[in-house]
Amino acid sequence: MSDGEKKQAKKLFNHVVVVGLGLIGSSLTRAITQRGLAGDVSGYDASLEVRDEARRLDIGAQIVDDLSAEVARADLVILAVPVGAMLGLAKEVCPHLKVGAILTDVGSVKGAIIKAVEPFMPKGAYFVPGHPVAGTEFSGPEAGFGHLFEGRWSILTPVEGTDEAIIDKVVAFWEGLGSHVELMSAEHHDIVLAITSHIPHLIAYNIVGTAADLEDVRQAEVIKYSAGGFRDFTRIAASDPVMWRDVFMNNKEAVLEMLGRFSEDLTQLQRHIRRGDGQALEDLFDRTRKIRRSIVEAGQETEKPDFGR
Amino acid sequence: MSDGEKKQAKKLFNHVVVVGLGLIGSSLTRAITQRGLAGDVSGYDASLEVRDEARRLDIGAQIVDDLSAEVARADLVILAVPVGAMLGLAKEVCPHLKVGAILTDVGSVKGAIIKAVEPFMPKGAYFVPGHPVAGTEFSGPEAGFGHLFEGRWSILTPVEGTDEAIIDKVVAFWEGLGSHVELMSAEHHDIVLAITSHIPHLIAYNIVGTAADLEDVRQAEVIKYSAGGFRDFTRIAASDPVMWRDVFMNNKEAVLEMLGRFSEDLTQLQRHIRRGDGQALEDLFDRTRKIRRSIVEAGQETEKPDFGR
Repeated sequence: MSDGEKKQAKKLFNHVVVVGLGLIGSSLTRAITQRGLAGDVSGYDASLEVRDEARRLDIGAQIVDDLSAEVARADLVILAVPVGAMLGLAKEVCPHLKVGAILTDVGSVKGAIIKAVEPFMPKGAYFVPGHPVAGTEFSGPEAGFGHLFEGRWSILTPVEGTDEAIIDKVVAFWEGLGSHVELMSAEHHDIVLAITSHIPHLIAYNIVGTAADLEDVRQAEVIKYSAGGFRDFTRIAASDPVMWRDVFMNNKEAVLEMLGRFSEDLTQLQRHIRRGDGQALEDLFDRTRKIRRSIVEAGQETEKPDFGR
Repeated sequence: MSDGEKKQAKKLFNHVVVVGLGLIGSSLTRAITQRGLAGDVSGYDASLEVRDEARRLDIGAQIVDDLSAEVARADLVILAVPVGAMLGLAKEVCPHLKVGAILTDVGSVKGAIIKAVEPFMPKGAYFVPGHPVAGTEFSGPEAGFGHLFEGRWSILTPVEGTDEAIIDKVVAFWEGLGSHVELMSAEHHDIVLAITSHIPHLIAYNIVGTAADLEDVRQAEVIKYSAGGFRDFTRIAASDPVMWRDVFMNNKEAVLEMLGRFSEDLTQLQRHIRRGDGQALEDLFDRTRKIRRSIVEAGQETEKPDFGR
């Protein structure tokens, strides 16, 4: 099979438009082109600076300046902007979707996005909300790379009554990018991600903030001795500020619920320490070690130790 | 310069005994031998199983079964056992120290160790408490490696009145292993490490425990979607349970103090989310991102993004 045939065999869409060219968007344009999933890939970003940067970098897409015209001829439109921007963007994009076109997104929150996008969807076009659980702590078009989605999970949260064939097409798209795909309700997604992603980010941001505000420990000391564990939290706490602000603003209910449970458990741990109950601590620490092993076994992490890489 | 001369030039001690052959102890024996810092290196572990394993692995030390006899002929004895075991071990080791010998340790807590060891120190021997801020989430002699201490910081917390020349010798030892060295009071050490290491571990253990106890999210889901941030916490929460139990039991005061500040800050963050104050969140997230950059610049982390390595 020649390269041309290979490309042909995998092609799922004639024309794909990626809106938002940050880490995720620019990884998508790269990956779609590298894997030949579309006839044409166009990319757009509201920021002229980002568009220019994307043009310079060659991210596997034609960078366009007129979003509406591009959307009008697309079979698949992917919204890859922070959740907060997504709400306004839908209003701008949806009216231009052609009959049969599919709209999807990559937002880390699904309930709020569905609520914001659905009212603007024109008849004959389909919205299939999605969320690739993949990323790094870096942002911008230069941070993207084509294999970001390989071996990772992408979640789709189709709204009730969506045509099966349409869902299958979006599943095939993510599988074509090397991801595993799972379908669930938006409500369940928002709870699962609150505990696996949103709360970890929140407490990482929090502890880095706490450390920055100490009067009895100098900032230089925090940095020097960060290899003791703190370092890992700063990595997460270096994630895109606007994206994460929007996540917390738009998944408020699930985040507050999970935060409540986390705080209850922390209070109990505090009590164990105060009372000197070493056995209770050891029991918990034994249990958590096993969960790590499951994650390594599930291929979501290597077992290589981390000592500053 | 021949290898023999090179070894001679760096030799700081005739005979070093490392007690405890886990991650840190077995990294020490390897590193001391590789860098020629001692004429002889002996290793001992209370567990016969660990001694056998260490013999099989060849960790750069002669593994001995009689601790007292070995200590009696040592110039430097390094206690590399969990903090809880350190307290009993001192009683066993100290009486055998010869005149002029130096005792040091690698415990993550310094105040409690000094309090436990000092009363047993014989006249004419010196105790210089230490703590290399280095490690991985793995345990046991097979987890050690000779370059563990390179580029990391080792903290010494000498007690008042300790001979300068003795401190200098221990400083030279850690520098010989490739570490940077800093001196501070045991009290300050315990506060600094509470925020840079102990609290990060505590909240990592806590969130992994919280996630394990959820009824509305299946364990398989937590594992699948761990790439969203949770994964990084499980790495820390896989650290040695006994070692960490002992840390919390023996640095209670500083840990509870720092935990109090962390919880206060978290409550404020919770309030920002509840009230929808996105600006306050974004301000914090901007601030924490800068701290990450400082850590990378200080050489305590690479800037390579982490996406499951």
